Amino acid sequence: MFELAKELQRDCILMAEWPLCTVLLMNDSQYPWFILVPRVAGAKEVIDLPEPQQIQFWQESAKLSRLLQDTFMPDKLNVAALGNMVPQLHVHHIARFKTDIAWPKPVWGLFSAKPYEDKEIAKIKANFV
Amino acid sequence: MFELAKELQRDCILMAEWPLCTVLLMNDSQYPWFILVPRVAGAKEVIDLPEPQQIQFWQESAKLSRLLQDTFMPDKLNVAALGNMVPQLHVHHIARFKTDIAWPKPVWGLFSAKPYEDKEIAKIKANFV
Repeated sequence: MFELAKELQRDCILMAEWPLCTVLLMNDSQYPWFILVPRVAGAKEVIDLPEPQQIQFWQESAKLSRLLQDTFMPDKLNVAALGNMVPQLHVHHIARFKTDIAWPKPVWGLFSAKPYEDKEIAKIKANFV
Repeated sequence: MFELAKELQRDCILMAEWPLCTVLLMNDSQYPWFILVPRVAGAKEVIDLPEPQQIQFWQESAKLSRLLQDTFMPDKLNVAALGNMVPQLHVHHIARFKTDIAWPKPVWGLFSAKPYEDKEIAKIKANFV
């Protein structure tokens, strides 16, 4: 049975439940940083999903990518399935700006997270309704 | 007209031409590190591709992922579209091991590349024929 990994529960805020994926916001106000988690028990790699679910997954990824472009107008999207620390399949979708603190480096492991204020979260979540 | 980015020409070795993508090997013997580049001029994000090409792209990505699993038997795959430094759409596919020098960190920007010897390249390329 699928259960969201403890680290993702601890570090993220639930934005929405899409047909295949749970959509999370990383609680780090330094970047618009979202994570898609397919609700499929035991999956570690995208290719662990049955082929129809892989197609569904990338459709939801494209939907999230377009939402990030339309909402935040970033210079670049970073879309990445890493999972070296948290093996449960989860795919980062990060809106990157030439002015963000990590640019042009990848964001992982660089700076400690700065949590959002509640009203900021509510504003971001409004895009998912 | 599509032309491979200069940085990718400089840092990578051509492995194969698949229907949509050029398959490159990063010339860094520290990790089995491959890059898929769709031969579509001007694309920066996967969602810049027309939808049938997005499906084709992820099929070729899945094929490469399975090839990496079968050939290298890694602990984890890292699949990532970043492009902060090289804007031409290219997607990293890296076979990661708990024993590699960067584990569990992402590989980008950590260590200088150690080029392959010619015979090592020939051996890896044999998997793409």
